[in-house]
Amino acid sequence: MRAIVIGAGMFGASTALQLARSGVEVTVYDHGHPGKATMAGAGIVCPWATQVEEPKWYEMYAAGARFYGDLVGYLDAQGERDLGYRKVGALVTSENRADFDAAGARIAARVKTAPEAGEVQLLSPAEAQAKFPVLKGDLPAWFLPGGARVDARLLSAAMLRAAVALGARYHSDYVTLERREDGVILRDGQGARLEADEIIVAGGAWAAQILAPLGIDHPVKPQKGQIVHLRLNGTATADWPVLLPMSSYYMLTFDDSRVVVGATRENDSGFDYRVTAAGQAEVLGAGMALCPGLAQAELIETRIGFRPAGPTIKPIFGRVPGIAGLSVANGLGAGGISIGPYAGKLLADLLTGAPAEQDLSPYAPGA
Amino acid sequence: MRAIVIGAGMFGASTALQLARSGVEVTVYDHGHPGKATMAGAGIVCPWATQVEEPKWYEMYAAGARFYGDLVGYLDAQGERDLGYRKVGALVTSENRADFDAAGARIAARVKTAPEAGEVQLLSPAEAQAKFPVLKGDLPAWFLPGGARVDARLLSAAMLRAAVALGARYHSDYVTLERREDGVILRDGQGARLEADEIIVAGGAWAAQILAPLGIDHPVKPQKGQIVHLRLNGTATADWPVLLPMSSYYMLTFDDSRVVVGATRENDSGFDYRVTAAGQAEVLGAGMALCPGLAQAELIETRIGFRPAGPTIKPIFGRVPGIAGLSVANGLGAGGISIGPYAGKLLADLLTGAPAEQDLSPYAPGA
Amino acid sequence: MRAIVIGAGMFGASTALQLARSGVEVTVYDHGHPGKATMAGAGIVCPWATQVEEPKWYEMYAAGARFYGDLVGYLDAQGERDLGYRKVGALVTSENRADFDAAGARIAARVKTAPEAGEVQLLSPAEAQAKFPVLKGDLPAWFLPGGARVDARLLSAAMLRAAVALGARYHSDYVTLERREDGVILRDGQGARLEADEIIVAGGAWAAQILAPLGIDHPVKPQKGQIVHLRLNGTATADWPVLLPMSSYYMLTFDDSRVVVGATRENDSGFDYRVTAAGQAEVLGAGMALCPGLAQAELIETRIGFRPAGPTIKPIFGRVPGIAGLSVANGLGAGGISIGPYAGKLLADLLTGAPAEQDLSPYAPGA
Amino acid sequence: MRAIVIGAGMFGASTALQLARSGVEVTVYDHGHPGKATMAGAGIVCPWATQVEEPKWYEMYAAGARFYGDLVGYLDAQGERDLGYRKVGALVTSENRADFDAAGARIAARVKTAPEAGEVQLLSPAEAQAKFPVLKGDLPAWFLPGGARVDARLLSAAMLRAAVALGARYHSDYVTLERREDGVILRDGQGARLEADEIIVAGGAWAAQILAPLGIDHPVKPQKGQIVHLRLNGTATADWPVLLPMSSYYMLTFDDSRVVVGATRENDSGFDYRVTAAGQAEVLGAGMALCPGLAQAELIETRIGFRPAGPTIKPIFGRVPGIAGLSVANGLGAGGISIGPYAGKLLADLLTGAPAEQDLSPYAPGA
Repeated sequence: MRAIVIGAGMFGASTALQLARSGVEVTVYDHGHPGKATMAGAGIVCPWATQVEEPKWYEMYAAGARFYGDLVGYLDAQGERDLGYRKVGALVTSENRADFDAAGARIAARVKTAPEAGEVQLLSPAEAQAKFPVLKGDLPAWFLPGGARVDARLLSAAMLRAAVALGARYHSDYVTLERREDGVILRDGQGARLEADEIIVAGGAWAAQILAPLGIDHPVKPQKGQIVHLRLNGTATADWPVLLPMSSYYMLTFDDSRVVVGATRENDSGFDYRVTAAGQAEVLGAGMALCPGLAQAELIETRIGFRPAGPTIKPIFGRVPGIAGLSVANGLGAGGISIGPYAGKLLADLLTGAPAEQDLSPYAPGA
Repeated sequence: MRAIVIGAGMFGASTALQLARSGVEVTVYDHGHPGKATMAGAGIVCPWATQVEEPKWYEMYAAGARFYGDLVGYLDAQGERDLGYRKVGALVTSENRADFDAAGARIAARVKTAPEAGEVQLLSPAEAQAKFPVLKGDLPAWFLPGGARVDARLLSAAMLRAAVALGARYHSDYVTLERREDGVILRDGQGARLEADEIIVAGGAWAAQILAPLGIDHPVKPQKGQIVHLRLNGTATADWPVLLPMSSYYMLTFDDSRVVVGATRENDSGFDYRVTAAGQAEVLGAGMALCPGLAQAELIETRIGFRPAGPTIKPIFGRVPGIAGLSVANGLGAGGISIGPYAGKLLADLLTGAPAEQDLSPYAPGA
Repeated sequence: MRAIVIGAGMFGASTALQLARSGVEVTVYDHGHPGKATMAGAGIVCPWATQVEEPKWYEMYAAGARFYGDLVGYLDAQGERDLGYRKVGALVTSENRADFDAAGARIAARVKTAPEAGEVQLLSPAEAQAKFPVLKGDLPAWFLPGGARVDARLLSAAMLRAAVALGARYHSDYVTLERREDGVILRDGQGARLEADEIIVAGGAWAAQILAPLGIDHPVKPQKGQIVHLRLNGTATADWPVLLPMSSYYMLTFDDSRVVVGATRENDSGFDYRVTAAGQAEVLGAGMALCPGLAQAELIETRIGFRPAGPTIKPIFGRVPGIAGLSVANGLGAGGISIGPYAGKLLADLLTGAPAEQDLSPYAPGA
Repeated sequence: MRAIVIGAGMFGASTALQLARSGVEVTVYDHGHPGKATMAGAGIVCPWATQVEEPKWYEMYAAGARFYGDLVGYLDAQGERDLGYRKVGALVTSENRADFDAAGARIAARVKTAPEAGEVQLLSPAEAQAKFPVLKGDLPAWFLPGGARVDARLLSAAMLRAAVALGARYHSDYVTLERREDGVILRDGQGARLEADEIIVAGGAWAAQILAPLGIDHPVKPQKGQIVHLRLNGTATADWPVLLPMSSYYMLTFDDSRVVVGATRENDSGFDYRVTAAGQAEVLGAGMALCPGLAQAELIETRIGFRPAGPTIKPIFGRVPGIAGLSVANGLGAGGISIGPYAGKLLADLLTGAPAEQDLSPYAPGA
């Protein structure tokens, strides 16, 4: 089987890797759009605290987190260890007491069936601050030892390399699709025709544009996020947990004294690549309000990503009805880092005819 | 009339400006692709030495250069003076005596009808070096006082601003086209429908992708160029002429001690945004061979641009047959800086029904 | 006479240029410290509204502004026009009525003897907003037609180039000074001895470090400024006046749709090169409070500069008592852009024995 | 004991860490000069092939490599794993047969007493290319399994963080020294006096400047290196060995598809921070000649570093005679990555009175 994967973000790179592991002849095309969500993605893997209650989605979210153990182990065996991945635990807190208690109740219910979350602890404000030293001093927190962080940019690159090491090919180019009587025609940026048995459109926020020529009205739109990277020079941040304050913001750290604060959620952005005065001020303000110790941190970078947001929170992936050999892999929104690797595995299983781990029909395009 | 211009490179920005000057209600969409040819374009305006002999194309090329006087004057009156434009003259030389003589003959024939070229002078090697101090010392040169240079990035931004000042709107977004029974549907990056009486696709190397959903096989492909920017700290380079060594390379300077050396011509590049080891070495090597004094210059930047190259050297612009209200503006290749502003004027005249300055039928899409 | 100028910021570059114009054999050394105040400097030339009342300093400040006409004219004649200079006028406003009235009174008194300020006008809020379209709509303003803006980075580079064109030499290196019985020894970064009749230390915030080996306790310290550059894509900003809201902040624009908002004043910063979360948020907050229309502007850059701040507002320049052939040129603080070019002229006159335009003894080192 | 370490490069950061481990109260000042050798350093740890024969220096070089095992283990235990360190082995080759044989003889003699080098293998051209796929196909190679690579930038930052975690303080600032009758006075960038029992000047190429005010003629000069970073997108390079072609060039890879090619050795550079046309072309040319497969690699960055080069190859470190409480730590030149961490340990032992692992008198300042 020859497959062409369009898009090497989290979902596409995982699909490509899992197909290659199954012996499929894979070619990956990625246009390198600067606003690719994966390249900006912060990388929290901690499903148990989410405020989203939809059960089917939560099941996918939790399974995605569980899948990380397998994936990281596999990549390590391939020599790919530069992923920014570390199981540092998660601090869940809130400035609102009722929200804090509700989070505790949610977590308690969910971890019963999730031993990988570890034993939840209630931390005093001082204990919470000891784990995340820039945090303000009056907030208790739930600590979940199983929470992890990852650098989406590094992880997707590593999955792609692992696919290439198995024989996949990779091109920095785009692909256009056209509909003909007898199927779909693919062309690369030079206009040359490409041949494939399976085409997987994993183009994220750009997928609607890629699919439009086929008459498909793909309901995924860009949701812009601005995410700020700070540095606390000289400070060892490798072991700080991810911080989830039960708002639309969050924080996590990397080994190089970096603290990441995310993110705006701009629904009507279209493709506007600009870091804006308002977006920057919003994220910095939210970060410093929760963590006054960040005021003197160095601002090293602000990243822009366009999350691929569907009409509902559920992903959209599977075969496109009525067009043989065409699949889509999209719609993960802000959940792409947690779900993407696992969803790529599910889609690869579907395309290679491997037994399904779960019923994927709710996610089918057009469903 | 409401017009939507897709693409704000040299051709699109000029079309938008000229339409706005004619009272058209213009909206410009530009996706900000990092490899836009205009953003990398070096900016030589000197038609008289070109090795291209095709008469119809040369006529357009020469008229494009003549048009600069009007354009720069107009923009100046609007307060737009930050264009990097200066009439510094051009040095035409060659390491090959026969090529040098042939260039002299071509120039002599052409400037007869081009008083704006000024009086051509034959310079001794020492005189040539006096004008371009890093040049090697054994090359005579033809000097054409009328040659000019411009910063394509600044000029296109200035034309866009001048259009906006006249009421045009500008969005950093992309537009997709779909064909329906009754015409073309446009959508922005959010999927919202846009309305226009005239659509001008000035998407450069990306135009084929934009037009494919309409079933149009637009024959323009990307030709990658890598172009190097050097700095001679402390050296006044504002008055150095452009340097045309009758090869595929060239040099020009800007006021800020910058020397620009161009460029690779990579025809099978597709959309590959990378500065490559080989491309960088090629351009630096060519530059230092001709101008040994560049060896100790600072390397400040290498730009990548995808020139929109059609099957022949001639531009492709005008109304698309069979689809009401759709025009294209493309195919200028390496000539975009010289021709783009003028071609935008011609196209705007065509769309607004102004008298044609010349017969545009050879450039019509599909011609 | 052979002079070595250490530092090519506004003060040093001007001194070098004026010495070169007087026939002095000048060599300039500049280490290229990334935090050089001149490189970050925003560039307002509008002395008449300042809240500083000290008469001697104000006289210098006003004379510095007057000097710009000569300087810009001279540079233009040398082919140096890429200075970011434009006489756009100044809008003086305040959110506080009493401060606004006081500013009006100060301006009225000062412009009597400053015809170059032009005729002051009182603008209604709507008129003020018409001149600076992102400004909030409820602030009246004084408009001074003679106010100007300049890009300090471009201007200092242009002065340096003009000096080089007159025969000066320029090295990207540092110089160390040592005291010996018989005078001062200079060495370059390689340790080689340099010879000069006159040494001018124009090292800005670094001058204390350069002079310490001579046993000189030079009282100039770094005052850190963080300054934000925004872009209003597509908007023609070339003619917007500078905006002086009678606070520690200010705004000005450049031709390329850029709006500059300055600046923090961090007195205990030492040499801390970091853009900080707090500094960024402070400047953005101040800018958006005054100009709500900046919220959707693109954040393109934040610059750091260390202003050389002396113990009082007055500059420190002239010959160092007791050490033959050593001068300093420093202490301009936030006034470096207005005063620097003129002060360089005064110092060059002093060193070449030209008649003094004013009594410089109040500025003498050690005075 | 209170120690102040000036400079946080490889040598300074290691000294700070080892002092902190011994209970010393350490403060580190680093001015963040952009050309710090450590920040550009490529990171080869493979002493056994060096063409340098000086026995005393070789002993230090070999011991430095051995020390890496301890250091990496210690840092790992502190949670610091983001070092770019990996024991990938080393390929030693040469285009010259005699040089190749001589290298083999040197290696054979040296590894007898260096079990950590692993078992040396002679590889055929095909085998060598299999390990380093972009290498040309006609070169046999010696393979030393014990060779390693490290990212000097990450390692020095990690050592600094580990010191801070033990209580050390870190300031992004510079320090000036002055001599007084009764000793040395230190001041920070604000001019405030600092107190310390031990001052360690680890300022690399800048140390001569720091020490000059004390009347010390420190014989270390900057040797400029330009080093090129390429990327082979999609290629797994994590396990490629370092490549030592017995010239002044070398190559190594990092996990993120990066290939580093080093470096120019510019002895008369002074502090010239510029990437030059000639330097860039030289390194790219050398890299592509040996490894044709790099031609299509992406050029992602060129780094500049000023190696601190003494009059001979031997390091200069220890107490400064005649000035109580002052030490220097410098002169490692191109060997800083191999030797720096170990030399920091030796110096810390000396200052804390721990037993000496070897006789340090040959390295003493002034020796």
